[in-house]
Amino acid sequence: MAAVPGDPRLAVDRSLRERVPPLLTDLYQFTMAYAYWRAGRHQEPAVFELFFRDNPFGGGFSLFAGLQDCLQFLRSFHFTDEDVEFLRSVLPPVTDPAFFTFLKCLDCSGVTLRSVPEGTVVFARVPVMEVAGPLAVVQLLETSLLCLVNYASLVCSNAARFRLAAGPRRRLLEMGLRRAQGPDGGLTASRYSYIGGFDMTSNVQAGFLFGIPVVGTMAHSYVTSFTSLEEVWPQTLNAANGDQVDFISLTKGLLARVCVLLKAEAGKIHEGELAAFLTYAIAYPHNFLPVIDSYSVDCSGLLNFCAVALALSELGHRPVGVRLDSGDLCRQSLNVRQVFKLCSEHFSVSTFDSLIIVGTNSFSESTMADLNKKENEIDAVGVGTHLVTCSKQTSLGCVYKLVEVRGRPRMKVSEDPEKSTVPGKKAVYRLLGTDGHPFLDVVCLAVEPPPKPGQPLSYYLREEDTSRSVTPTQVTCLRQEVFTKGQVTYPLCNAKETRANAQSSLQTLDPKHKRLQDPDVYTVAVSEKLHKLVSEIQRSCTNNSSTNFLLSN
Amino acid sequence: MAAVPGDPRLAVDRSLRERVPPLLTDLYQFTMAYAYWRAGRHQEPAVFELFFRDNPFGGGFSLFAGLQDCLQFLRSFHFTDEDVEFLRSVLPPVTDPAFFTFLKCLDCSGVTLRSVPEGTVVFARVPVMEVAGPLAVVQLLETSLLCLVNYASLVCSNAARFRLAAGPRRRLLEMGLRRAQGPDGGLTASRYSYIGGFDMTSNVQAGFLFGIPVVGTMAHSYVTSFTSLEEVWPQTLNAANGDQVDFISLTKGLLARVCVLLKAEAGKIHEGELAAFLTYAIAYPHNFLPVIDSYSVDCSGLLNFCAVALALSELGHRPVGVRLDSGDLCRQSLNVRQVFKLCSEHFSVSTFDSLIIVGTNSFSESTMADLNKKENEIDAVGVGTHLVTCSKQTSLGCVYKLVEVRGRPRMKVSEDPEKSTVPGKKAVYRLLGTDGHPFLDVVCLAVEPPPKPGQPLSYYLREEDTSRSVTPTQVTCLRQEVFTKGQVTYPLCNAKETRANAQSSLQTLDPKHKRLQDPDVYTVAVSEKLHKLVSEIQRSCTNNSSTNFLLSN
Repeated sequence: MAAVPGDPRLAVDRSLRERVPPLLTDLYQFTMAYAYWRAGRHQEPAVFELFFRDNPFGGGFSLFAGLQDCLQFLRSFHFTDEDVEFLRSVLPPVTDPAFFTFLKCLDCSGVTLRSVPEGTVVFARVPVMEVAGPLAVVQLLETSLLCLVNYASLVCSNAARFRLAAGPRRRLLEMGLRRAQGPDGGLTASRYSYIGGFDMTSNVQAGFLFGIPVVGTMAHSYVTSFTSLEEVWPQTLNAANGDQVDFISLTKGLLARVCVLLKAEAGKIHEGELAAFLTYAIAYPHNFLPVIDSYSVDCSGLLNFCAVALALSELGHRPVGVRLDSGDLCRQSLNVRQVFKLCSEHFSVSTFDSLIIVGTNSFSESTMADLNKKENEIDAVGVGTHLVTCSKQTSLGCVYKLVEVRGRPRMKVSEDPEKSTVPGKKAVYRLLGTDGHPFLDVVCLAVEPPPKPGQPLSYYLREEDTSRSVTPTQVTCLRQEVFTKGQVTYPLCNAKETRANAQSSLQTLDPKHKRLQDPDVYTVAVSEKLHKLVSEIQRSCTNNSSTNFLLSN
Repeated sequence: MAAVPGDPRLAVDRSLRERVPPLLTDLYQFTMAYAYWRAGRHQEPAVFELFFRDNPFGGGFSLFAGLQDCLQFLRSFHFTDEDVEFLRSVLPPVTDPAFFTFLKCLDCSGVTLRSVPEGTVVFARVPVMEVAGPLAVVQLLETSLLCLVNYASLVCSNAARFRLAAGPRRRLLEMGLRRAQGPDGGLTASRYSYIGGFDMTSNVQAGFLFGIPVVGTMAHSYVTSFTSLEEVWPQTLNAANGDQVDFISLTKGLLARVCVLLKAEAGKIHEGELAAFLTYAIAYPHNFLPVIDSYSVDCSGLLNFCAVALALSELGHRPVGVRLDSGDLCRQSLNVRQVFKLCSEHFSVSTFDSLIIVGTNSFSESTMADLNKKENEIDAVGVGTHLVTCSKQTSLGCVYKLVEVRGRPRMKVSEDPEKSTVPGKKAVYRLLGTDGHPFLDVVCLAVEPPPKPGQPLSYYLREEDTSRSVTPTQVTCLRQEVFTKGQVTYPLCNAKETRANAQSSLQTLDPKHKRLQDPDVYTVAVSEKLHKLVSEIQRSCTNNSSTNFLLSN
């Protein structure tokens, strides 16, 4: 790709990762593929569906993500000779050698993927992907597709909830790389947190690959590495007008005045911290945003910041703000803002009115939501562990279920109704009301005509036997063909575009479904025809009258 | 590498992942590196330590893992021209161009890593890694090293707890790929779950790369894809003696006899399930271990299994067992075992005595531990979500702290004593008692002579001001040099060897520290000299008498 990395004009991001190898799957996919092959069933047309059973985090919705990775996986799916030799070594010795020849020729040219677009709001039990193709091939794809969708959708949904908790104004920074599941987990987290509603990341590689804005200034180690002003070099800084100024003397003078203004004890101020701030400001006079709690915010960090920031302002540079990383951030931010105001007035420095306060201290969804309840002056929040590990719910629990073979619907009729599947090849429609909000997703058989705006539609809720009726104002078909005959047929979007799609999909959702606690349940229903099919299969199972039952004939 | 993948003779596994790019880090590492460089401090010798503050999962220990990945990262650490151009685009425009020339020449030839060996039992607050080298370089390594150690150690420790909960006898299968944080998260999980004490994985790529035993047979989709015996092909199976036998007729006859024996209703048996079992057994007569709960264990799956397994036995093949994937596994396993015994006696088939029962249904550490309390017949357990996502505690919280610059100890003196660091370049010794169990890790200054067996040693506990004394029977030095002058100086082990090391390290640990609930706390102490250094620095901070304090002179 010749374009500059991160160039917003890039239609598609760089690949999220190296090619996902087709061996990155569960062994049983191969033993099943072999058994299908041995029985001559491997080419039978089959349809699988991917869905999850509950909206994550006790919420009312999810964001669907991971599609682009799935498409790249399908496009490059093939076994190398080395892959096949390894499979030969782990599959039982009785495996017919012709099966390995078959594997060597496999690709996804016979597979068609229909999917909800990436970044769409989706709900539990809606089949978000439909994978159709030769039985052995679509079976082999299961684990890899689940692996690519599960975490991407989970962390994207988590980010969307953090965004809802933070409100639209506050800037959100993802900084979870060090706590993610390894390098690729960290990259996936950065990408999908951005798509879910974060503004920036600390992860440079994510900026490189996906064009996500990257930010960061300094850690405590930078501050504690300095001990005295003797370490400050160069000691001068050029003013905006080009004059070279002794920056240390200027700052020391201002520090003394700040101490007087704030009635602070000069003796408690940490010289190493001041040295750290000075060197950083000299290096980056337009990007001065230090962490101010290495020793004591009130007795040292805030005073040192004000002195250096006032010196920068005096030279015509614009300091950016401060970062707070421990303790009661709300209380501290109020105090910091008050000091900024005092300095702004006392020193007549208007830039101090717009200094930003960044908070980073183990933010969870609930402490983020607290920011809207407690008085505070935090403009931007950095989130790491709880975002990327999805500590509130660590897995989305996506599943991949067989719904049709050779044109015949297949259904798992479990003793646990939660685990029963819905048979048949389907279409999914989203119905919108007069207010423009979607209010019902209806799952139909693929052969049914789509619901029409302005016309009443009968539908059934799960485990109800009486139909209901509704008249939609608008109807959209939720899934589209995105891959067929070995080709991606879906306009790939870069992270920024997908983020915009996700935000606009969230925007149309009624706020009652977006409440973080106790949201109104969004209705997912089945069509009359599909309900009838489910009932028939269930009845045939309990009546033992079906040819599915052995020895009954 | 010419050796066959997975070959146990391989001294080292294949690389866990593609080279970790040096941009996979937080941006502030670069802004800090620049500020150091600008101040002429980038070459100053510095020492960072990596440790975690609390043992994970409320336990008494952790396993240290991720070292091999760190070594590969250090060995290959360098910036490509493209990396540097990207950095140029994201760092502030005032960044001196000479800094980018400096970056292009950077590598880890000046870095020395001292580390606890991979797979060693470690405890909170023991610095497991010490990274020494030029200040700017060792600062740049922070995020990547944390990312490589954090999750690896967490999931390895989690696996060790599952192993302790399961007891030594039960076979443990890791099968979390689909619930992991993407492909690489899944690979990391498989590798370190094995090292932590699991026996097998479902992840084929993990078998390919690391030689972990890979297992798997069939999913529910395989069972539900069949509807009738007409789909069974071929219908014959060769007996061990070479005779070709009509396997369907043989099995149907046995099924009728099983129904009589167990007083089961033949009409409730699912023909599609029998067809699935038959085709699988015909494909893999020596590896027959079907999932038997697709419809009903008692009314269909178990009966079908027994019929097919008896038919296999009659032909001289040896069926393996069954998998239960839903419901009350303990209760079901008792019932299944009873049926196996009945069949063994009634049909005089001794292989039925050794059939194994595999359980896989959202196992957590606590449901695993329950298996030791409730009567059950489960021989092997598959664990996915709770193992790989470490749902009980999703992050180890490793940190990387500066302890020395230019030979001078550095310490963060936080208002929160938990967040204060321990200064200075150190050595760590593990003291063993007469019973052979380690009982104390003592952190000393590197310049101190090591504690000697049979000689009393004074030590201090954190936040205590009176010394204690102890006489160890044995003393081991916990860390060793593993990387220096650009070379790995540590004998790299493959996964199997590291697993053996981990198990033997766990073996020496006193059971009281291994209790999953309320373990006895293992003592981590500091030497008299180190305690003195900490006290001095703390005193100088509170007395304001140090030159660290500005304006005091």
